[in-house]
Amino acid sequence: MPRDVSIAVVGATGAVGLEFLKVLEQRAFPVSSVRLFASPRSVGKQLAVNGKPVSVEQTHPGCFNGVDFAFISVSSELSEELAPQAVEAGALVIDDSSAFRMRPEVPLVVPEINGQDMEEHRGIISIPNCSTTQMVMAIAPLHAVNPVRRIVVDSYQSVSGAGSGAMEELRSQANATLTGEDDILSSRIAFNLRPQIGDFLSSGYTKEEEKMSEETRKIMHAPDMAVSATCVRVPVLVCHSEAVHIESEGPWSVTDARNLLANFPGVSIIDNPQAGEYPMPWDLAGTDDVYVGRIRQDWSHPNGLAMWVVADNLRKGAALNAIQIAEEVLRRDCLKPTSSLSQASSA
Amino acid sequence: MPRDVSIAVVGATGAVGLEFLKVLEQRAFPVSSVRLFASPRSVGKQLAVNGKPVSVEQTHPGCFNGVDFAFISVSSELSEELAPQAVEAGALVIDDSSAFRMRPEVPLVVPEINGQDMEEHRGIISIPNCSTTQMVMAIAPLHAVNPVRRIVVDSYQSVSGAGSGAMEELRSQANATLTGEDDILSSRIAFNLRPQIGDFLSSGYTKEEEKMSEETRKIMHAPDMAVSATCVRVPVLVCHSEAVHIESEGPWSVTDARNLLANFPGVSIIDNPQAGEYPMPWDLAGTDDVYVGRIRQDWSHPNGLAMWVVADNLRKGAALNAIQIAEEVLRRDCLKPTSSLSQASSA
Repeated sequence: MPRDVSIAVVGATGAVGLEFLKVLEQRAFPVSSVRLFASPRSVGKQLAVNGKPVSVEQTHPGCFNGVDFAFISVSSELSEELAPQAVEAGALVIDDSSAFRMRPEVPLVVPEINGQDMEEHRGIISIPNCSTTQMVMAIAPLHAVNPVRRIVVDSYQSVSGAGSGAMEELRSQANATLTGEDDILSSRIAFNLRPQIGDFLSSGYTKEEEKMSEETRKIMHAPDMAVSATCVRVPVLVCHSEAVHIESEGPWSVTDARNLLANFPGVSIIDNPQAGEYPMPWDLAGTDDVYVGRIRQDWSHPNGLAMWVVADNLRKGAALNAIQIAEEVLRRDCLKPTSSLSQASSA
Repeated sequence: MPRDVSIAVVGATGAVGLEFLKVLEQRAFPVSSVRLFASPRSVGKQLAVNGKPVSVEQTHPGCFNGVDFAFISVSSELSEELAPQAVEAGALVIDDSSAFRMRPEVPLVVPEINGQDMEEHRGIISIPNCSTTQMVMAIAPLHAVNPVRRIVVDSYQSVSGAGSGAMEELRSQANATLTGEDDILSSRIAFNLRPQIGDFLSSGYTKEEEKMSEETRKIMHAPDMAVSATCVRVPVLVCHSEAVHIESEGPWSVTDARNLLANFPGVSIIDNPQAGEYPMPWDLAGTDDVYVGRIRQDWSHPNGLAMWVVADNLRKGAALNAIQIAEEVLRRDCLKPTSSLSQASSA
């Protein structure tokens, strides 16, 4: 049994941060002490951690001293500033932003898929983008048996991916529309769709769509896997959904694919279409698994398989994956890096 | 100038029927007389047609006598019963159901694409499924220049595709959720997604997904075109949206694709991503065109192109396409069939 550890949660009052504290308690993660950090406007708030109130602080020099794990869920810009400070102080950073994901020296980890990558960490382990995580969970068990050459994926992403403010905004927009007090001028998402998540690149893809391509290749150790995504924000509060079409080296039997998925840890099958059973986001918010349904041979490609994948983007897409990484770090006993990103000695 | 014609609208009080009466007036379709038919519970209602009230009747034997065009938008079962009666009476049926679409002797028409097919009609011309129509509008101009071999499409279909009752249901579910009076037990669509439209087939695809494959091949005269669809109901009131990925014989330049689309009648480009401009359903409800944006080379396939297509499913997807067919029939002077489905003489 590993010793209890000291943790810091940065971005504790955000949608992912709050979910993180829930998951921490639900999984009885072995903490000896918890520090909570957030932006100045949240300082002084108290949040329950394992049933006890903990005050939210602002980060400051030295705030990561004595911390074993720093869980960071803030903007990339802020992560770039804070993560090195935490590493310097001897903490292992588990970072939810895109700041470090594609750096060659930073493991990008979904424990069920590439847990071994974390053993090479140098102070930072990145969590993949939420839309990537649930997709690779559904593809990894298939890829292991019948290599996947190409993925076409179109996403249906909930507003919680943009934070708790976006959830409130959806509710208030929907209410304004229903009551006829509708003066929503921009960024309407209620009863609407927005086919943009993240900034646009010169390729015409968005940053979010690029993440789904690049991160998938990195996590799967599949540099030649082709991935084309269209990422769309939908008026759903929690859970991302994805229509996924894969092309493999050889043909698929639906039975084989279903068995591979059903036997993969963290994946559940909901696929009884004749009974109207398939994964739907409203039903699955607050749960841990990645749910796969609508599994069928893709009749437009001899080696194709199509499926529908739903997961709670705040849990497996973020908070749960972060804690699973920490659990796996303890299991593999690799809290301290073999070589550090910085030359600082551990505190 | 063709003579004014006598029309019957069957399903006049439905979502498509009401939109049809709007389009009829907006396009000043040359009608001499209009009869409105609906189910018994609507009998006696009055609807405005070109500004004048017309009473809704129940269909009855002989009700199509003297009718030139019978526009039918009811269930397939009811269409199967009523359309032959109208043909028998000498009317040209323009049918919105799936009852006749795939019959070899029935033209399935989007006038901009295969208007010439209507000349072979034998009393019935079918309108494609709404999700098919907007997709083929965006693909036909590309296919004409660089043949499309395969389409992967994932849809984001509004509830109005299931009728006006479904629109009311979405509003009332959303209201119940927001006010905390949420006792929605089944068929939730508010703040949810449902990856099923139509019944399931043994292939694992739904009927709606099969329509997108079969109808596309028929309209485009492309029996070998491979089409894989995932059709998903989303909490949007009007307009269907589609993430479309095509694979052509040769590679695509985005500029060429955009020009081809921009020059095709009935297609508009909204594609200035850097300015946050792309088609969105809320903005486009009530308009006539098929809107294409997010046009980009599909980086997962050498001959691939990806795009995002939005259209008002009640207008181009149904009512507008129906009237455009009638206009084209008059222009081509092919109201009467060269050979009739029935042996009855025209009334």
